[in-house]
Amino acid sequence: MTDDPPFSPALLPAGFVDLLTPDARTEARGVATLMDVFASHGYDSVRPPLMEFEETYLAGAGVALAEQCFRVMDPDTRRMMVLRPDITPQIARMAATRVAGSPRPLRVSYAGPCVVVAPVAAEESSRQIMQTGIELIGPDSPEADAEVMSIGAEALMRLGVKDVSFDLTMPPFIPALLEEAGVPAAQRPALMRALDRKDAAAVAQHGGALAATLIALLDATGAAEHTVAQLAELTLPPKARIVLDRLIDTVAAVREICPALRMTVDPVEFRGWKYHTGVCVTLFAVGRSEELGRGGRYLCNDNEPACGLTLRPDVLFRMIPPTPARARVYLAADASRQEAAALRSQGYATVRGFASGAQAEAEARHLGCGIILSGTQRVDLA
Amino acid sequence: MTDDPPFSPALLPAGFVDLLTPDARTEARGVATLMDVFASHGYDSVRPPLMEFEETYLAGAGVALAEQCFRVMDPDTRRMMVLRPDITPQIARMAATRVAGSPRPLRVSYAGPCVVVAPVAAEESSRQIMQTGIELIGPDSPEADAEVMSIGAEALMRLGVKDVSFDLTMPPFIPALLEEAGVPAAQRPALMRALDRKDAAAVAQHGGALAATLIALLDATGAAEHTVAQLAELTLPPKARIVLDRLIDTVAAVREICPALRMTVDPVEFRGWKYHTGVCVTLFAVGRSEELGRGGRYLCNDNEPACGLTLRPDVLFRMIPPTPARARVYLAADASRQEAAALRSQGYATVRGFASGAQAEAEARHLGCGIILSGTQRVDLA
Repeated sequence: MTDDPPFSPALLPAGFVDLLTPDARTEARGVATLMDVFASHGYDSVRPPLMEFEETYLAGAGVALAEQCFRVMDPDTRRMMVLRPDITPQIARMAATRVAGSPRPLRVSYAGPCVVVAPVAAEESSRQIMQTGIELIGPDSPEADAEVMSIGAEALMRLGVKDVSFDLTMPPFIPALLEEAGVPAAQRPALMRALDRKDAAAVAQHGGALAATLIALLDATGAAEHTVAQLAELTLPPKARIVLDRLIDTVAAVREICPALRMTVDPVEFRGWKYHTGVCVTLFAVGRSEELGRGGRYLCNDNEPACGLTLRPDVLFRMIPPTPARARVYLAADASRQEAAALRSQGYATVRGFASGAQAEAEARHLGCGIILSGTQRVDLA
Repeated sequence: MTDDPPFSPALLPAGFVDLLTPDARTEARGVATLMDVFASHGYDSVRPPLMEFEETYLAGAGVALAEQCFRVMDPDTRRMMVLRPDITPQIARMAATRVAGSPRPLRVSYAGPCVVVAPVAAEESSRQIMQTGIELIGPDSPEADAEVMSIGAEALMRLGVKDVSFDLTMPPFIPALLEEAGVPAAQRPALMRALDRKDAAAVAQHGGALAATLIALLDATGAAEHTVAQLAELTLPPKARIVLDRLIDTVAAVREICPALRMTVDPVEFRGWKYHTGVCVTLFAVGRSEELGRGGRYLCNDNEPACGLTLRPDVLFRMIPPTPARARVYLAADASRQEAAALRSQGYATVRGFASGAQAEAEARHLGCGIILSGTQRVDLA
């Protein structure tokens, strides 16, 4: 192309950023805090690689992410490799291979960057996303789902993120209901679209014999206990009832651990879930549109049940107070090395300078230092 | 290709690995320790992105790394993007753009993964490498070089890495000497090869009038003080003398801060340095062949002087004791939530179980727990 605009040396591709101080520090500290909460519940960290063979990554859970993968050729094997857009499918692979023999329930945590071809949600612009999460592999029960969600809630509380809403869904429910109720295949797309848009009139139009039930489901959406009460009274075909009851049981199991958690339920939601097979959850801060995390139940590559939750430190760090920097001490040319080391061990940052006297004071201020160390003497700048 | 061997779902591309427990934990803790040492010297963390436009990355310092970059097309702009093989050129870009206006000396630190097309050294197999480093931007002096190296030495000591050798070189010295001495261009390649192989006979053969000097330089290589003493006595053309004196001054400046540091000097070494313009250093553990880190002096994208050092936590974690896991407590079905939280805050990992009595004991052992919490009662397993 010859008509490209002049190229700025500062320009980064859309969705990729230079994170500066204090953001980089706040994010790194946030990741460490999250990983520490996960470790306190017995989740041991693993670190899968940034790239895998396409055939490996797109086997199992990863297949739904094919469109989100950047690909490059491995010059060694001439096979295609993908840059991971999501870590969970790597854990699903590991569970079936490297750690197939580890005792179950298997609890693992991870933290690392991922790259997606296009931002994952309309509210987002990032193409490099940071994931920090846990996976509980083996058990398939409401209690397992609740453990994962409650640890997520604790982690966010430790981080200082307030007013988080856990929005629960059951993506397989609506397809299961339409199937069991015998809604003709030709009718389903229009009905699914209507449900997705929460358009009660269109649901009434396309819902046939199910219309009243579906509208009751739409109406039920909201605060968890309200929804659960309404759902319990609904008449449903038996298989759909079992699927929905699992959602209800999970709400009860989460509530038992987290009495005060803000929790909503939308039994009709199914869109945007790629490889999930059971109860799913999306985390939002009240009044903000970006997702803080998401997770849910899926199957590992050998069909072993698993449940996970991934938090997004690159979103979260914008919602918490910046991690304070160490207070800075300017080391004049004659500063005692021993005293400087003592200050560092007390939590100060010492910044080596090459000036002394009045010049030292000017340079100290210039470099954000509130203290000067000269010899063994510490001078606090007013 | 139809004759590919059967593809294992566990297979990863050469040089990419799944890091498991405790390695992943040890590496993450190691990175945190290094970053903390850097912060204690006033180095603030930044986090440049995994990918950049090729035009941006290969401008300035990055150009020497073109062969190490995987490339993909950005579907938005149709421009090529590179997956970074090295973070330093990104800092060189930032210094000239985003943080061009920050006070100098500018001290930044970073930690993150990089991907190279082929392993960076014969002793290595990794293509995903982890970099944790610092850059000191602005000053161009032996003291600045010494600050960077001494912080690296302190960081390795804090990590518990023992017997590290700092091997100093001055890549521009030999080319400057040959130029100034008027060695004909046609003669230089053979002479450079001979010097690179430390082949004194070949150096004598191709060295012409410089042969005696070059052989004296070869002989000088070794422990820093020994080398410096020999180099001081050598007769050199004036410009080459200035270049070499800078190396000598840097050794003295490092020695002043780190009296006990194991330090060698090779004034003849020039190979493998891509974008460096002054004193460089490679870090090895005595008796091991993998590099622990490397760094040196270079120019930012607007030719501002800078000196950096990058450590390799993915190599270092294999040389230090594993970071211990939290002691694990099995929570029987009836375990007190409050007591469990108290144990976590005391540093235990609590692992939720769904069994009680004798079954709980078996499951606790199976999951690596040495303690069972039942109600508020803690039972230590023998």
